[in-house]
Amino acid sequence: MGRVTASLSDLPLRDDLRGLTPYGAPQAPLAVALNVNENTHPVPDEVASDILDDIAVALRDVNRYPDREFTTLREGFAEYLGHGLDASQIWAGNGSNEVLQHILQAFAGPGRTVFGFAPTYSMYPLLSQGTGARWVAGERQPDYTLTVEDAVAQVVEADPDVIMLCTPNNPTGTPLGLDVIEAVYDAARGVVVVDEAYQEFAPRDAASALTLLEGRPRLAVSRTMSKAFAFAGARVGYLAADPAFIDALRLVRLPYHLSALTQAAAVAALRNASTMLGMVDDIIEQRDRITATLEALDYEPHESWSNFVLFGGVADPHATFQALYERGVLVRDVGIPNHLRVTAGTEAETTAFLDALASIGSAS
Amino acid sequence: MGRVTASLSDLPLRDDLRGLTPYGAPQAPLAVALNVNENTHPVPDEVASDILDDIAVALRDVNRYPDREFTTLREGFAEYLGHGLDASQIWAGNGSNEVLQHILQAFAGPGRTVFGFAPTYSMYPLLSQGTGARWVAGERQPDYTLTVEDAVAQVVEADPDVIMLCTPNNPTGTPLGLDVIEAVYDAARGVVVVDEAYQEFAPRDAASALTLLEGRPRLAVSRTMSKAFAFAGARVGYLAADPAFIDALRLVRLPYHLSALTQAAAVAALRNASTMLGMVDDIIEQRDRITATLEALDYEPHESWSNFVLFGGVADPHATFQALYERGVLVRDVGIPNHLRVTAGTEAETTAFLDALASIGSAS
Repeated sequence: MGRVTASLSDLPLRDDLRGLTPYGAPQAPLAVALNVNENTHPVPDEVASDILDDIAVALRDVNRYPDREFTTLREGFAEYLGHGLDASQIWAGNGSNEVLQHILQAFAGPGRTVFGFAPTYSMYPLLSQGTGARWVAGERQPDYTLTVEDAVAQVVEADPDVIMLCTPNNPTGTPLGLDVIEAVYDAARGVVVVDEAYQEFAPRDAASALTLLEGRPRLAVSRTMSKAFAFAGARVGYLAADPAFIDALRLVRLPYHLSALTQAAAVAALRNASTMLGMVDDIIEQRDRITATLEALDYEPHESWSNFVLFGGVADPHATFQALYERGVLVRDVGIPNHLRVTAGTEAETTAFLDALASIGSAS
Repeated sequence: MGRVTASLSDLPLRDDLRGLTPYGAPQAPLAVALNVNENTHPVPDEVASDILDDIAVALRDVNRYPDREFTTLREGFAEYLGHGLDASQIWAGNGSNEVLQHILQAFAGPGRTVFGFAPTYSMYPLLSQGTGARWVAGERQPDYTLTVEDAVAQVVEADPDVIMLCTPNNPTGTPLGLDVIEAVYDAARGVVVVDEAYQEFAPRDAASALTLLEGRPRLAVSRTMSKAFAFAGARVGYLAADPAFIDALRLVRLPYHLSALTQAAAVAALRNASTMLGMVDDIIEQRDRITATLEALDYEPHESWSNFVLFGGVADPHATFQALYERGVLVRDVGIPNHLRVTAGTEAETTAFLDALASIGSAS
């Protein structure tokens, strides 16, 4: 073609999209990429080989539409999550973003509001706006924690249709007590989503919101295979909720939204869950090492139950981001003044980050 | 859990979803399934093996997020489509339904209208309602064709924000002349989407709407790998349009919407396009055999440029559907009075359908 001259403003775009720019964490080809909270450990060879065997079987029927109900995969998630769950209480999508989008399409949309305690996962406002709903940001304590009284008061005031509770919270790493979740649920008339994307990095004895599902049909607990499972490239998110809640999501999903290859890969990965999750302890160790070293360098790391650390005391985040970038280390400026966020990588990647940061000098 | 008692009506579902039931072609385990216009020929072994090699490579990095821009795949589609297209003019999604959803999220949504000539693809109204837009159904001639004058008059009258032109049209198989597409584009202020999901089954010398893209920034031509490519299970749809149109879709897609495994599988399948498409001539032959035999049985098949045949003259579609079902053959009742739709399968499947239909007796 070659003579294309149109620009976005020439097209009849929806008014609420005019002037926006696409979501974009930088896709920079740096050796040490600690910016999007991936699990930086590759899938072990023996697991990859097992996954490939299942995909080979799926390819035999790939000319046919996949199982629209992804029953085997839902059974796999129910078994992995435990707590007596069964397949009728499970949903999944192409990444937890799609799972959250399904929830918002069913329970939010035009004229409705979605509420969360900021700072929190940056996709919540975008997903809300994408369904035509209004995003309302609540507040946290200075250390990003939430008390029962404060959380309930804000929820009562906002009276939202959907409440997003991210725990451990992204981008701060902050855990949230089950007592807060229970109280928020009781105070709300809307749907309550507990986003446990990073739950596998919490202490082993920390209770999951999955224990609260019984008798709470407006509650959903979402998870992802992108983090602890080292499966970000496969795009698999899921949730557990009451079967009636799952039925609501069936009304809004696109038919056959999960490919046969995705279903096969995820089923095989779940069968190898103990191996897939084998790196979690290593990552927790590196996270705690980051926290200790940051303190020694006079930065102010926040308590984290996830696979990343948000740290304050950064005089000029843009300058520090850039200095790290020039040393081959990619971190994330999440837009909180005087803060940066770093993912806990392998031991070598973590060392590279800490050495690079130390070479820049202590916090000022 | 086990004591779950909630029902969908107990949940704070969006008002416009109340009372709806999920999309659902029957997922019946019948030996001869000719109901959802799949390519019933499996992917050849040598191609499956090649695809598996690419997926094995992708699995090495599956702990990382996929290429958000799926650049290699967009290059592959541009090369496959030809017409001088390049990657900047290509978009893709998890099935053409997701690609169409992206278009509607960008250009339709609340307060806007989407128009198509009924009967047409049953997902258009659902996708429109899903974005909050209003679906407006235009009309076709009794033989499902469209004249320039009639099409333009209806578009001017409806003044829609998005126009869906399905050619060959599902569920009727009817082709649409490029002159109609050009005239509709000129008459419209909104976006015009030409859905060529079944284009590979049209006569070889039939021109594609891809030839109209130059100088028409509001035009998009969508395709799918689900039909001719025998890749329904992999969920890959795509489109070609002006680069500015593609930029609009970047505003509404979920980040990383295409998995690394999907990208790898589709790139490998495109590399084997000539083999993947090797069954198209066989399918066309079976389609034309269906048409000829239906006429001999006194049914009224409509002209089809796709891999299915819609036929009238069915006194009681429900009874005929059921009689075929009992003989192990699954067809589709698309809701048009006195009509049924059947996919052209392999020679053996097609024979099974025709024999079963003949055993029921001629059209009444």
